[in-house]
Parts: sequence; structure tokens; C-alpha cells
Amino acid sequence: MGKRMDVLTNQLEQDKLDWVALNPGPSLRYLTGLNFHLMERPVVVLVSSSGQVKLIMPELERAKAASLPFEAEVFLFSDDPAGWQALFARAMADISPRPLRVGVEPTRLRFLELSLLREALPNAEFVDGSAALAGMRMRKSADELRAMRHAALIAQNALINTLTTVKPGQTERQISAELIVQLYREGSEAELPFAPIVSTGPNTANPHASPTDRTLREGEILLIDWGAGFSGYFSDITRTFFCGEANEEMRQIASLVEKANEAARFGGGPGMPAGEVDRLAREVIADGGYGDFFTHRTGHGLGMEAHEQPYIYQANPLTLEPGMVFTIEPGIYLPGKYGVRIEDNVVVEDGGLRSLTDLPRQVMRLETFLEKARKG
Amino acid sequence: MGKRMDVLTNQLEQDKLDWVALNPGPSLRYLTGLNFHLMERPVVVLVSSSGQVKLIMPELERAKAASLPFEAEVFLFSDDPAGWQALFARAMADISPRPLRVGVEPTRLRFLELSLLREALPNAEFVDGSAALAGMRMRKSADELRAMRHAALIAQNALINTLTTVKPGQTERQISAELIVQLYREGSEAELPFAPIVSTGPNTANPHASPTDRTLREGEILLIDWGAGFSGYFSDITRTFFCGEANEEMRQIASLVEKANEAARFGGGPGMPAGEVDRLAREVIADGGYGDFFTHRTGHGLGMEAHEQPYIYQANPLTLEPGMVFTIEPGIYLPGKYGVRIEDNVVVEDGGLRSLTDLPRQVMRLETFLEKARKG
Repeated sequence: MGKRMDVLTNQLEQDKLDWVALNPGPSLRYLTGLNFHLMERPVVVLVSSSGQVKLIMPELERAKAASLPFEAEVFLFSDDPAGWQALFARAMADISPRPLRVGVEPTRLRFLELSLLREALPNAEFVDGSAALAGMRMRKSADELRAMRHAALIAQNALINTLTTVKPGQTERQISAELIVQLYREGSEAELPFAPIVSTGPNTANPHASPTDRTLREGEILLIDWGAGFSGYFSDITRTFFCGEANEEMRQIASLVEKANEAARFGGGPGMPAGEVDRLAREVIADGGYGDFFTHRTGHGLGMEAHEQPYIYQANPLTLEPGMVFTIEPGIYLPGKYGVRIEDNVVVEDGGLRSLTDLPRQVMRLETFLEKARKG
Repeated sequence: MGKRMDVLTNQLEQDKLDWVALNPGPSLRYLTGLNFHLMERPVVVLVSSSGQVKLIMPELERAKAASLPFEAEVFLFSDDPAGWQALFARAMADISPRPLRVGVEPTRLRFLELSLLREALPNAEFVDGSAALAGMRMRKSADELRAMRHAALIAQNALINTLTTVKPGQTERQISAELIVQLYREGSEAELPFAPIVSTGPNTANPHASPTDRTLREGEILLIDWGAGFSGYFSDITRTFFCGEANEEMRQIASLVEKANEAARFGGGPGMPAGEVDRLAREVIADGGYGDFFTHRTGHGLGMEAHEQPYIYQANPLTLEPGMVFTIEPGIYLPGKYGVRIEDNVVVEDGGLRSLTDLPRQVMRLETFLEKARKG
């Protein structure tokens, strides 16, 4: 923790930020170990480029401030919102006259906190400070990678347990409910990265489907996109199956998606722009004649958040570095018919990409998949 | 949905708001049926006081726009953030020259969306518009109340199933894992209102404890705070138990908390300020000599969010009206020793408060509780 704080303050100086304002979420946890729910109360932690820390939090949670691994001024507010602005003003009285550049996380800080901060720091300019934080969090340590591999194993075991119970006639919702139970049985943390996607038949053509009461039938595709949480880190996997016999077109798009996944996994590596990984997968699908039906980016970063940097889209110039973790999840979606997606979680290493997920990737019949997966 | 949209546009006119800007979350779902994850993409829905609707969303999710129960202009963005600002500008080109008052939800709208909106609407003033939305969502319909009762029943059944397996020697984490499994077995939706709190011994003195590897021992207090989701609505309950024999002080604080819960449940009703419900509970505990150890407000609103309006704190002048749902959860926390909390979910009716939760409230031995709960 202390070390991470040092890296941050150095980064703030480089980015010409006087302070960074964090609210509850992964970056705050990463940096301070503090775990708050993001709810109706305006919890804010301010860190300056010289290492000064101000912590504004509810009286109710004062115990959390006791175990901090660094010095901090602590300001406690009560349950009455009428007192919040005054407390923010008091907390920032020593710095409010100065013109400050304050970095915030655009996908995290809300109008609530921003308004209180603006009023308390009338001379400050609030800017996107996410680069400093995302840069730190993108490069995973060995400990973080171990947690992520564990989150992948929990998810994989949960899937195998679930598939042994899947039969035609079950609804997407039933399969999803069983998968959730198995995720917890296998040791997932309470917070899943997202509610599992279980889609069947034409619903597989919608990449962001939610489970419905539609039943799985013979001759259809079954697609499952799910993940687990372990020690604050997530996995996020997709596998696609044939329920019974597949038709020619199904086998064709399945084979293209398999090759696209493989091209990105084997072709990606350090020193390459993130966009190049997208290109590697997209090219295979475009060459196969289905370019218009691969409607999303190839992947997204993964870690303490289900979606984080680096994002794997064609125009992204960000250079991949060892320790970065992201998904590779090409797909082909034929509206009204079916879709296929195969998603792995990979980490950038010196020699290339290593996959943290290792269930069989080929689209095959459920029974065949179970046989292969059990053999490892 | 259409009707809710009408209520909103009337409310916007009353509140002198030209537009309201919503991003993914309960209010958007309540109003439009649209369900998006709040992640890295800036999904925004704008509604004007004359009923005009603009929907800015990812290309990937265009299918969601097809089923809208109202007319809307739809603007689709790609995965490359470089194009987002231009799309926002295009979406708002017809209204950007005008000076507008735009309401937002302070606990929902983020710096990301706000920055894109500000740039696209340079003449607009962005203000807290939550009153209009919270006002609608606070008064629950009969359908919403049925969903909430169902969410309460799922949680209650899951607790009973879990308690049959609880023994001294188990860890807080083990008990919490079993409770989560039971919540899903009983039919909870994937999204729980929050990760269950299971605390034992001195950990019960921390109202916001997270489950640890501490084991439950004879002679201790066990506190469980948990909830389920059903049809988009949450329950949120707390019960406290004696594991074996309780000492005199434990029994004394338990009895005070029972009486405080009862005083608020029986004393509260329509036409009363929310703060009065807090006072009713707080008075009992203060009169018993433990006022300093009831460290939080008496409750919070409940519905599509685990915490929403109305908040039950002493200074809140908001008048309670039929259909409002909130928790009543007084507690006494003796640092280093133990704590007791008893939490119910109540709805305001013409004649008073009706509880949606009906497990036995008295703090008693686990075995006794199970006997009573099963009898109903």
C-alpha cells in the first residue's frame, strides 16, 4: 500500500496534478485498502502530489480509518446531508485559496462528490486524472496475477459442474441460476464481475443478452459468458456449445471465431499497440466473409473491474506491456439466427500472451466438451 | 412506462427543468425499461419537459432501442472513445444554442457523462434533478410492493435454510457463503442488494462489518444483515441471535433494540416527518442509557436500490406518504464487546406502517428462533 502511494504521488507530479480525488471503488481499494460501498454518501479521499492525504467519510465508518497504512487527516460527517458541504469546506480550508489542478476518475466520481468539491475548492480545475491510476492498475503484480488465475479456476470449475446438469428443455434462467450457485460453491466472492449471460438459439445473436425463460432445444447453440471474483479480482470467460447436431453455417462461424481467438492469443505480445490485437482477430473474421457480424471490440482490460484499461479496439495506440491483463473475445452474430463468442483472459509476458483461462475453446457438443474438460 | 414518462414530464415543468439527463441505473430502468450496465461507456438518455427523448448508446446495444414504449431519437457510438464527443454534439445540436436547465441524479451521473454533456451543451446549467425522480420512485405501486414482499420472502426462507446448518466453529465467511447459495436457491435475482453481513462476537459491534475468518463461539452474538432481489426490487433485513447462553448486558441491549424497533414500527405513519420515526426509535435507546451507542440513522428507503429516499434521520422534514418503503433498523454497538440490530422493511399505509418482513424479531437462541420461524 505504502509503495503504491509513492508510485501515485510521483505520477501526479509527472502529470502536473496537485491532488487526485478518489471515491469508493477499485482505485481507492488498490491504493489504500479502504473498501466502501458507493452509495448515497459522499466518501472522498484526496491525495496530493506531496503525499498529503485527506479522508472524508461517515462517522459510522470511523473504524476504517484506524488501520490505514499511511498518515491522513480524517473528517467525519453525519447522516444529515445538510452538514456535508460545511465539512468539505473545513476539510479543504488550508488548500482552497490556491489554484489547483485536481484529477478525478471520470467513470467513478459523481455529480454528488464533484459538486461538494467544486464548492469547497472554488479555485480548482477538475480534470481527467484516470491515466495515473489506470497506468498503475494495468500492470499486475505476481500476487494480482495469482488471484486472477484463481478467479479463472473458480469460474471454470463452476461451469463444468453446471454443464453436467444442463439438458434440452431447461430455460436460460434455470441454467444461469445453477451457474451462480456453483460459482459460490467453488469459492467465488459475493461480488461477481457481472450476472452471467446464458443465451440459447436466436438469443445468442445478441452479444449482451440477459437470461430469459426461453428453453434450450436440440440443434441449437448455447452461449455462456460468466466470471468469478477472488480476492478482489475478476475472471470473465465465454464458451459456446452445440446442443446436439450443428448445421453447416454454425460450424463455419464457430471455426472462424476459434481461429480469430487463436490469432489474437498467439499473435499478441509486448511492445505492440492494443489495436493490433484487435486487428489480428478481426482480420480472420473479415477474411472469412463475416466482418460485418463481429460488432464489438476484441476485448477489454480485466482486474479489479470487469471492464478496465487496456481496451482492445482497433484505434487504440496504447503500447502493451508485461503484466497487462485483458480479454480476447471475438464473436460472430447473425441476427435472428445464432452467434458464437470465445473469450479468454490473457496476461502480457515478455514472450507473448499467456492465457489464464484454459477450458477447451473449440465449439463442440456439450457432452464432448465435458469429456475433454475433465481430462484437463 | 408511458404513464411514468408523463408523470416525469409534468414534474420537470413544475421543477422548472428543461431536460433531465439519466444514465444507467434504477431511475432509467424505472422510466424506460432500459437496462444497461454502468461501466466505461457513456450511455445517456435525455428527456425534455415536452416529452422529447434522446438516447445515446453503444452501437453494440442497438437492439435495446427497438422495444422502447415511446418515441426517441437514437444516437449510436462505437467502441472508440475518440468519437464520443462528436456524437454528443450531434445529438444535441438542435438544443445546444439555448440556455437550458438540465437536471441530473447526483448519486448516478459521473464526471464522464457530465463532461461530454457540458461540452455539447455549453449554455446549459446542470443542477440536482433528483427530487423529480426520487419523488416518483418513492411512492410504490401495488405491483412494486408485491415484488418487494416477494424479495422479503426469498430472503427469509434463505435465512431459515442457512440457520439449520449453522454451528459454533464455523467462520463468518462460511455462514455467509451458505446464505448466498440459499438466496439463489430460493429464487433471488443475480444482483443482491449487497453482500450479506455475517458478524460474530466483537465484530457485531461494527455495524458495517464484512465477513471474516473468525469462528462463531458459544456464548456469543451472531448478527446477519442480508437481502434478496426480485423483479428489480430488494429486501434488506437484519436479525441477531444468541449462540448458547447470553449474559445480562447482551439481554439488556437486545431488549432495548427490540423495543426501539417496535416503537418506530407501531408509532410511524403517514403525514409524519421521516425524522419523527428516527426519534421514536432513538428515544427508547436513549432512555435506556445507550443513546451514545446507537451510532447511525434509524433507516433508509428501499426499492430498486438498497439505499434510496426517504432516509430516516432525525433532521429529515420529508413528510411520509402511503406507498413509501423504508427500513427500520435501530442498533446498539458496544465497541470491543458486541452489538445488536433488528431491521425490518415497512411500507407506509393509510393507517400506519405495515411490515413486509415478518421473521421473529426477538433476539433469542438460534434453535429457539428456528422453531418459532418455522411455525410462522
